[in-house]
Amino acid sequence: MKLKPLSDRVVIKMTEAEETTKSGIILTGSAKEKPQVAEVLAVGPGGVVDGKEVVMQVKVGDKVITSKYSGTEVKIDGEELIVVRQNDILAVVE
Amino acid sequence: MKLKPLSDRVVIKMTEAEETTKSGIILTGSAKEKPQVAEVLAVGPGGVVDGKEVVMQVKVGDKVITSKYSGTEVKIDGEELIVVRQNDILAVVE
Amino acid sequence: MKLKPLSDRVVIKMTEAEETTKSGIILTGSAKEKPQVAEVLAVGPGGVVDGKEVVMQVKVGDKVITSKYSGTEVKIDGEELIVVRQNDILAVVE
Amino acid sequence: MKLKPLSDRVVIKMTEAEETTKSGIILTGSAKEKPQVAEVLAVGPGGVVDGKEVVMQVKVGDKVITSKYSGTEVKIDGEELIVVRQNDILAVVE
Amino acid sequence: MKLKPLSDRVVIKMTEAEETTKSGIILTGSAKEKPQVAEVLAVGPGGVVDGKEVVMQVKVGDKVITSKYSGTEVKIDGEELIVVRQNDILAVVE
Amino acid sequence: MKLKPLSDRVVIKMTEAEETTKSGIILTGSAKEKPQVAEVLAVGPGGVVDGKEVVMQVKVGDKVITSKYSGTEVKIDGEELIVVRQNDILAVVE
Amino acid sequence: MKLKPLSDRVVIKMTEAEETTKSGIILTGSAKEKPQVAEVLAVGPGGVVDGKEVVMQVKVGDKVITSKYSGTEVKIDGEELIVVRQNDILAVVE
Repeated sequence: MKLKPLSDRVVIKMTEAEETTKSGIILTGSAKEKPQVAEVLAVGPGGVVDGKEVVMQVKVGDKVITSKYSGTEVKIDGEELIVVRQNDILAVVE
Repeated sequence: MKLKPLSDRVVIKMTEAEETTKSGIILTGSAKEKPQVAEVLAVGPGGVVDGKEVVMQVKVGDKVITSKYSGTEVKIDGEELIVVRQNDILAVVE
Repeated sequence: MKLKPLSDRVVIKMTEAEETTKSGIILTGSAKEKPQVAEVLAVGPGGVVDGKEVVMQVKVGDKVITSKYSGTEVKIDGEELIVVRQNDILAVVE
Repeated sequence: MKLKPLSDRVVIKMTEAEETTKSGIILTGSAKEKPQVAEVLAVGPGGVVDGKEVVMQVKVGDKVITSKYSGTEVKIDGEELIVVRQNDILAVVE
Repeated sequence: MKLKPLSDRVVIKMTEAEETTKSGIILTGSAKEKPQVAEVLAVGPGGVVDGKEVVMQVKVGDKVITSKYSGTEVKIDGEELIVVRQNDILAVVE
Repeated sequence: MKLKPLSDRVVIKMTEAEETTKSGIILTGSAKEKPQVAEVLAVGPGGVVDGKEVVMQVKVGDKVITSKYSGTEVKIDGEELIVVRQNDILAVVE
Repeated sequence: MKLKPLSDRVVIKMTEAEETTKSGIILTGSAKEKPQVAEVLAVGPGGVVDGKEVVMQVKVGDKVITSKYSGTEVKIDGEELIVVRQNDILAVVE
């Protein structure tokens, strides 16, 4: 069972472990907007969204920084996932 | 008696049973936005909505994740239905 | 004396009797949005509304579900009517 | 002395007498939006309003239903007038 | 010293004297929007404003009705002036 | 060291001295919007701003009236400057 | 490990030292908007953002003034970075 996001939506999963052990990434943020590193699990087809052509710029496997509160949380088969719009993704971590 | 949604609206029905028994899907969410799995019962024709061409991307029978508060509840012939805009549907569950 | 709605507006009348006796339709809704079944009494000509072409999709006699608070109530010749925009009509009941 | 409204504005005057004596029209409304029957006294030229072409659909002498709070009251030569945008006029009463 | 308004702005001056002596105009209004008669002292060039072509419809010397709170007050050489957008001018008084 | 504003932004400096001594200009305003006379120190290139072509209409040396709260204050080399968008400039004082 | 911003986003780093020692720049601001000098570390590709073509006007190494609250803070490899949209950059400091 998996999620197939519509239009410009992206399914991501927080990578909390990496955040504290591997590379020393520490994320700060105000109470209103908590940036986090996440992995992209599924990417919508893009296309015309709200009357505007949207080209998807992230791909499955990308590590991204996004804003927690703009997405919707869902738990599938034990995994906690988040569905965000691509516009809520700030940057790709390389 | 059935609902025939206008423009980009979609009639869905919550599939609560499946949520806890069959596949182990557990949905979480903030108080403001409660994601839920629902089945699509009827799909509007799409077309020009607010001056923009909208192509319907879901079909009858799809299992979808949406946001509860963006739709309107209605009870017809004993069934509790929700009318949402397609844009409120986040993803299709496969 | 009758109402001739402008642009994309529609004059409807609540069909409360049918709601409880004939077909068993029971309408639920949050305090913010109360869906209701209504009959269409008059339909505006559509045309360019807010700079966008609007084609009317409902006709006189249709039973529709709409949101009570988006319309304006008016009493004419003893009948309580509501003037809504077509965009406030969610679905046609068949 | 008279008012010549700009763009899509319309000058109307409430017809309170008719509201209770002649045709039995009784207007109800929530505290936020009070519908009322008014007579059109002057009509703006329409044209491009906020970048969109607006064609005037009401004419002097029309009886219209509008929303009280969207207009601006002005008293000229003893008459209480209201200046509304055409978009605030819901329907013509025939 | 004088003001030369930019784009679709208009410099007006309230004509309070005329309001009570000459023609018997009495202006009423809610606390949120106080209509007033004013004289046009300077008119901006119009042109493209917020991406839309605006043609100026008032000229110096016009008596206009506008909304007090949408403009900005300024005192120059002892005169109290107000800078408004043309869109805040409701009607010309003739 | 100087500021080079982006797009339709303008760097201005309040001319407080002139406000009380030379020409008798006295500026009034509500608590929400304090109009002030300022001198233009630097002008952005204009161009496409938010998808719309913007042509700069002020030049270095112009005395302008603007709204204090729409800009951002910055102190450079002892000078208190303000960065505003051209759209926040109401009029040029001549 | 580095950040690669999407669309019109820019990664900046506050240059606090320079703010008080080298050139005497002192930044003031209201509680809502704190302007600050920052160095540009990475620039997104621009392109179509929200349906509008955006051309990037800043480059890596630029010193810019921006608004703190419009960006998102992130700490990578010990460096505190901020991701802003180019539109939040007010001016380049030369």
